[in-house]
Amino acid sequence: MIQSDDRKGLLATISNFFYTRGFNILRCQQYTDLYEDKYYMRIKLDLAGLTITRAELEKTFGGLAEELALVWSIQYSDRVPRMAIMVSKTSHCLYDLLVHYQENDLFCEIPLIISNHPDLEHVADKFKIPYYCCSIKKGEKPRQEAEVQALLRKHHIDLVVLARYMQILSSDFIEGFNGRIINIHHAFLPAFKGGSPYKRAWEHGVKMIGATAHYATCDLDEGPIIEQDVERITHELIPDDLKRIGKDIERWVLTRAVKAHLDNRVIISGRRSIVFPN
Amino acid sequence: MIQSDDRKGLLATISNFFYTRGFNILRCQQYTDLYEDKYYMRIKLDLAGLTITRAELEKTFGGLAEELALVWSIQYSDRVPRMAIMVSKTSHCLYDLLVHYQENDLFCEIPLIISNHPDLEHVADKFKIPYYCCSIKKGEKPRQEAEVQALLRKHHIDLVVLARYMQILSSDFIEGFNGRIINIHHAFLPAFKGGSPYKRAWEHGVKMIGATAHYATCDLDEGPIIEQDVERITHELIPDDLKRIGKDIERWVLTRAVKAHLDNRVIISGRRSIVFPN
Amino acid sequence: MIQSDDRKGLLATISNFFYTRGFNILRCQQYTDLYEDKYYMRIKLDLAGLTITRAELEKTFGGLAEELALVWSIQYSDRVPRMAIMVSKTSHCLYDLLVHYQENDLFCEIPLIISNHPDLEHVADKFKIPYYCCSIKKGEKPRQEAEVQALLRKHHIDLVVLARYMQILSSDFIEGFNGRIINIHHAFLPAFKGGSPYKRAWEHGVKMIGATAHYATCDLDEGPIIEQDVERITHELIPDDLKRIGKDIERWVLTRAVKAHLDNRVIISGRRSIVFPN
Amino acid sequence: MIQSDDRKGLLATISNFFYTRGFNILRCQQYTDLYEDKYYMRIKLDLAGLTITRAELEKTFGGLAEELALVWSIQYSDRVPRMAIMVSKTSHCLYDLLVHYQENDLFCEIPLIISNHPDLEHVADKFKIPYYCCSIKKGEKPRQEAEVQALLRKHHIDLVVLARYMQILSSDFIEGFNGRIINIHHAFLPAFKGGSPYKRAWEHGVKMIGATAHYATCDLDEGPIIEQDVERITHELIPDDLKRIGKDIERWVLTRAVKAHLDNRVIISGRRSIVFPN
Repeated sequence: MIQSDDRKGLLATISNFFYTRGFNILRCQQYTDLYEDKYYMRIKLDLAGLTITRAELEKTFGGLAEELALVWSIQYSDRVPRMAIMVSKTSHCLYDLLVHYQENDLFCEIPLIISNHPDLEHVADKFKIPYYCCSIKKGEKPRQEAEVQALLRKHHIDLVVLARYMQILSSDFIEGFNGRIINIHHAFLPAFKGGSPYKRAWEHGVKMIGATAHYATCDLDEGPIIEQDVERITHELIPDDLKRIGKDIERWVLTRAVKAHLDNRVIISGRRSIVFPN
Repeated sequence: MIQSDDRKGLLATISNFFYTRGFNILRCQQYTDLYEDKYYMRIKLDLAGLTITRAELEKTFGGLAEELALVWSIQYSDRVPRMAIMVSKTSHCLYDLLVHYQENDLFCEIPLIISNHPDLEHVADKFKIPYYCCSIKKGEKPRQEAEVQALLRKHHIDLVVLARYMQILSSDFIEGFNGRIINIHHAFLPAFKGGSPYKRAWEHGVKMIGATAHYATCDLDEGPIIEQDVERITHELIPDDLKRIGKDIERWVLTRAVKAHLDNRVIISGRRSIVFPN
Repeated sequence: MIQSDDRKGLLATISNFFYTRGFNILRCQQYTDLYEDKYYMRIKLDLAGLTITRAELEKTFGGLAEELALVWSIQYSDRVPRMAIMVSKTSHCLYDLLVHYQENDLFCEIPLIISNHPDLEHVADKFKIPYYCCSIKKGEKPRQEAEVQALLRKHHIDLVVLARYMQILSSDFIEGFNGRIINIHHAFLPAFKGGSPYKRAWEHGVKMIGATAHYATCDLDEGPIIEQDVERITHELIPDDLKRIGKDIERWVLTRAVKAHLDNRVIISGRRSIVFPN
Repeated sequence: MIQSDDRKGLLATISNFFYTRGFNILRCQQYTDLYEDKYYMRIKLDLAGLTITRAELEKTFGGLAEELALVWSIQYSDRVPRMAIMVSKTSHCLYDLLVHYQENDLFCEIPLIISNHPDLEHVADKFKIPYYCCSIKKGEKPRQEAEVQALLRKHHIDLVVLARYMQILSSDFIEGFNGRIINIHHAFLPAFKGGSPYKRAWEHGVKMIGATAHYATCDLDEGPIIEQDVERITHELIPDDLKRIGKDIERWVLTRAVKAHLDNRVIISGRRSIVFPN
């Protein structure tokens, strides 16, 4: 994953770097943001014939990157990301993630599920994943967050998925996992930020409802959007129907966003996300 | 078109009213709003065998309606609605309305097109529709609105369509045509109210853009929504691309909304629209 | 649920029948097929104040129905339908049904799951539903079908859902459950009937793939369609990607179709299904 | 536009070729077909600083291409493609192309419109484009085709768009314009090939209808698909409604396909089209 200002010759220089060192480029996706003159690249290499160590590779490429002023990162496909799911009382997003995980459609380990309520332990049990209930006693939210953070550290978590976790996380928590917390909001953002979006959508008489998966940032419901989708509704549906229909939209929007992140297809750029197609 | 509070026996009473008088009910669409306990009905009658005058029919039904506390209106399908289109400088929505009109897909007469600029006269000419340029000189907006209103009155206009007319109408103007002005907004409302929605959509990094056709009210971009649609976009598109793609969404959203209104399929209820399917 | 030829006064006569007997009509959906002059009605009654027995109600209405030559059926909402799921080796549709069932989004009991393979017992176990493996030994397919039929009878099954059951059922079996077997086909029928639809879709270079839920009939993949949906694909996806994306389409198409059936919103009419909106 | 078998180093070699010669690569889109081991590339160069002639450029690159066994073609953006539209009696696709052309959304010249009927001359007149009526007298179809071919030659036509031209073209005609004739079929191919697709869609009870734009080949309705789209329909719509709704789908599917071709974003590969995103 490479970001930089747009400049002549980047593609040739970078692809040549790998070619002359004997790597096969399996896939190269680029995107030139003509609006802000930025350049993004996702390059997938076959390391099969690597004759140097990974550390050496990173060092050599790091030299080139410094020269060209590139922002870059590398992921190895034999290193499986570790994902924690946080939930409250509704199970639909949790189920969808676990079912896709079970069917090998998500490239990750899920070592634990964390909740502020005991309700969904039976779901975790079904899939034999440890469930930690970190409940929030009045005035003890900071203590609970510390408990959650300790669990995430202990389990070496790379990605936190808020699968309808109905608590606002502190700035500290979010900054500690910057760009590694994905949240699902039950509306087509930026419409209907905040609470009760389906009720407000009904009152507004919108003709479609939606859901949005985004990275959590300190500005609530404002983080970089990864995935969105909508469904057409009719005037005949009441807010409870919208809620039920919305559950299905939330399911697939969140699962797709998580999959894109786990596939290393997302680059965050300011308040926007670049999501390379699968 | 009938609105009322929901009550036992409405369907039986009303359908019986027409049946015992020998009318054939061609179509009856109803909707019970279980959330607010309201009842809406659209009933289409065959007047072929009408043995009384229309005035008598309206008087008799008016009696029943008063008894049942119904809000109602009647439209005769041999009375063709008269529609005015208002535009500024962009032609895409205007073209789409005129092409559908020309192909007999909109049930109306279009006696005139009004603009605050001379630019689109050539489009009106193509379809042989009179074009009135009511330009706005500094400080003379009220005078221009009076000019437009006089034209609408003179031509007995039933419906005003703002096909990207880039001026805010006064409350007086809007109230004079309450529930009979349709506007197209180039965003998926309530997101991106106001100006430059495509640029702001790009900056937000949304994954879909949309358009919204709604009745104009004194609250800008807040009137009852008739139709909305969206298109999926990718990060590769710059604001100008969104504008171009948005043009197509605006086209079909506005034309569908106008068609629904002209088909008498829309009932306004507070800030919501009930749109019966075709 | 009422079907008949279209005739004057049906709505008035039927709604009056219930009104004069003191029933409250909770919902009345009708559809006049102007193309074939047929009339369909779905009427939902509140039986709270029923002073006669259900048998008497059915007898009285039966008299009216005979007079008017109506085809009709009645379902009581306190009678929970019993549904069997049949699967082979892929679990995605099974999971989606069970999760929606568990979250009370499907109005039914699921007393058993039947498969021709042992592979998915662990899924049934998660949801504590008995799993019967009726495997097919060479030349013994009729015997296996008899075994399945006995299970369905024993458990008083109303609806059989083929959630990717990869066996063709005999005409006998299908006729015994006429209009009560729902199948999911992994293509947008009538395109790509038969096997390997995703591979054939790729070879054809179609720009969208889909899935179709339909009632099973003796003509393979030709039964009345209940629900369909599609997803846009790109040339970058290989057949295995289409398969993976298709799994999600199959999930929600089948679950929606089953929900429509369980909600008593479907009337079969020849080779078509009338599906009343929720 | 480059096609080849997939091989190590293609990207580096080609991008280097241009970089070392001082070209700026404005955009480079690639696609590796992992299923058939093929490689496709679309590369957009800035020729501003070209110090050699175009002929020299083509010769030099031709040398490299021969060495690497690439299939390639080049288009210059100052060479405006010339497009002919062929129609019969329905105007909706014709209008949509002309309106987009008029609004500068299609990069082409349209020197003529050809029809086998006189009906749509008024549309051509609106946009001041010459209209040729080449009617077909009994048994004289070959003569009419020769007439059409002469017109296309005389006007140096690059692309022929069949905008609901209701005649089957001869193999000779099609081969003479191989990969340069775009047709719109009013169904979601491969479903409902041949005539009366909307009627057959209704009889089948499909829940969505669609349209398909594809290159014409000698196998009717089997050519490489460029664009498809669908709309959800309900059981309430009769075949005439489907026809009317279908008109809108046909409009935008054909216009998008034509735009993709004119933007040089399409590579034909066997019976498939690779369509690079905009």
